Amino acid sequence: MTQQWMPPIYRDGDAVAILDQRILPHHEKVILCTTPEQVIRAIKTMAIRGAPAVGVAGALALSLGAEKIEGGVEDFRRRFSRLCQKVKEARPTGANLSWAVERIYSVVVENPKAGIAELRDMIRTRADAILAEDVETNLQIGKWGREVIPRGARVLTYCNAGALATADYGTAVGVIRAAHEKDPSVQVYSCETRPFLQGARLTSFELMRAGIPVTLITDNAAGSLMSQGKIDVAVVGADRIAANGDTANKIGTYMMAVLARTHDIPFYVAAPRSTIDIALPDGSGIPIEQRDPAEVTHFNGKKVAPEGVPAVNPAFDVTPNKYITGIITEVGVLKRPYGKAIRKALGV
Amino acid sequence: MTQQWMPPIYRDGDAVAILDQRILPHHEKVILCTTPEQVIRAIKTMAIRGAPAVGVAGALALSLGAEKIEGGVEDFRRRFSRLCQKVKEARPTGANLSWAVERIYSVVVENPKAGIAELRDMIRTRADAILAEDVETNLQIGKWGREVIPRGARVLTYCNAGALATADYGTAVGVIRAAHEKDPSVQVYSCETRPFLQGARLTSFELMRAGIPVTLITDNAAGSLMSQGKIDVAVVGADRIAANGDTANKIGTYMMAVLARTHDIPFYVAAPRSTIDIALPDGSGIPIEQRDPAEVTHFNGKKVAPEGVPAVNPAFDVTPNKYITGIITEVGVLKRPYGKAIRKALGV
Repeated sequence: MTQQWMPPIYRDGDAVAILDQRILPHHEKVILCTTPEQVIRAIKTMAIRGAPAVGVAGALALSLGAEKIEGGVEDFRRRFSRLCQKVKEARPTGANLSWAVERIYSVVVENPKAGIAELRDMIRTRADAILAEDVETNLQIGKWGREVIPRGARVLTYCNAGALATADYGTAVGVIRAAHEKDPSVQVYSCETRPFLQGARLTSFELMRAGIPVTLITDNAAGSLMSQGKIDVAVVGADRIAANGDTANKIGTYMMAVLARTHDIPFYVAAPRSTIDIALPDGSGIPIEQRDPAEVTHFNGKKVAPEGVPAVNPAFDVTPNKYITGIITEVGVLKRPYGKAIRKALGV
Repeated sequence: MTQQWMPPIYRDGDAVAILDQRILPHHEKVILCTTPEQVIRAIKTMAIRGAPAVGVAGALALSLGAEKIEGGVEDFRRRFSRLCQKVKEARPTGANLSWAVERIYSVVVENPKAGIAELRDMIRTRADAILAEDVETNLQIGKWGREVIPRGARVLTYCNAGALATADYGTAVGVIRAAHEKDPSVQVYSCETRPFLQGARLTSFELMRAGIPVTLITDNAAGSLMSQGKIDVAVVGADRIAANGDTANKIGTYMMAVLARTHDIPFYVAAPRSTIDIALPDGSGIPIEQRDPAEVTHFNGKKVAPEGVPAVNPAFDVTPNKYITGIITEVGVLKRPYGKAIRKALGV
């Protein structure tokens, strides 16, 4: 609490500074990126992660790229379009990255007569707006979300949907922050979240910094706690939400949702509207990133499983809408039927 | 497969040899115990684990102790009784340890006129019988259990209920071995089982040695695999089974059982009758061992969570009987109503 809080991504002069989340909580080291390729690498290697934060990173990567692209204006437009595609592909499951890239790219599309200097200016301004708006959005999510957290609640959260997964403040953790501000008896169980341990390394780290009581558990202990009546509500983030409310989030989220239902515990998803992919009718179309099996078989670079054992490492799973009590957005808590609520929230 | 298989516990001259499971699969090192205290330490530190193996270890610890106790026969009986109590307390949740200790202690009770040499002989013989019978029991469990494994099944197992959790062959893994012998298309998904990684380190190790196809997953990926129709049946071990069939097993087992039910996947428990605690009407009375939170906050001796974060580390959870499709014992597959089936299996 006395230590200064470092946001996960920010402008540092001409560079984009990214807090290297792979070495948290033990080391707070910043990666200074001056090229979009460096930002893409930070996304792919999980130096920065969390769908909203990755969206912001994508926007800032494009802003860096716009400064670097040389040649005539037609060249600029063509090469910038290719860069947009490359940035989009850095992580496939989260919707916010595509959303941010589209939002930046629309500057180029909507200003067919603008010169390079003008485009660069507008791209920079829009990227900075995406960064700034994300924090504001999360504060709104917190404001709506705290209303669903019961007094004295023991809140289960999963993975990291915190300040570190966003520009700042957090989505699911934002809800917890806002609830705890109103009611200091709110406390949190943080699932460690294998294999990358975002819950152990990041969520417990930022909750401790915020002075919010947190207890760390292995993911497999959640069912036992629920059966003992020790969890009152669950709040998680989201990487992509389909038009019907089906939600992709970190692998294991589905399991938590099934357990919550079995124990009649409300299960909320907290996410900005930019997470919603209205083009997808349901969760079956959400691309699931398969990551390196070595993340499962190794730990801190050290092998834990037998030499040569096959492993699968899906980074996300899909929770069907029927398990979700509500989707907490910056415009309110969406309720079933989600199709209708989502269309209304998006104004489509 | 070409490498020699080392059983987890065996006699080596006057000593008891225990394979140190904490450093598997990378190192195969044996701890030679010549005192009961050394065996107790091996149990408490998880050098040997798995309820049946711990039962065997308890029996052999008492045999070592009987050789060491000096003085008159009354002294012997008194000190041996105290030792029995100490051995029993080495790990609280598993039933097999109490069962083995009681079975050894009954030698002393049932032979009130025997001298020390005679008692030592009988204790040694009975301990060796417990070791030998455990393997035979597991072969029988395998024989019954393989009948419930569908052709070409993709079997989910949890933690390690294998050769390493028993004197040899295994309970849940014994069922898989027997099924695979009959049908080589059977394959296994092994959950890594945080925090001690028995699934990653032990189950995948022994399945690979046995030539049975195994894929390692994080515990939190099980729900996703089930929802994709990739799991046909689940088989796990047990540490203590109450008179009504409620079953304590490694933390996370309950979660797997709930998920299996949600996806209509049969969920079997494989365990010798010595795991049944007929004195306990239901699972609520099963003592749950709470282990050091450092097992959660550290990984391979290296801290992964923030300094000072509280953690809870229950080593077991209880799966209510309603989630269990059948209990595979050495005398057959017990079915609902379990109270009746269990009494019949125990002949009480």
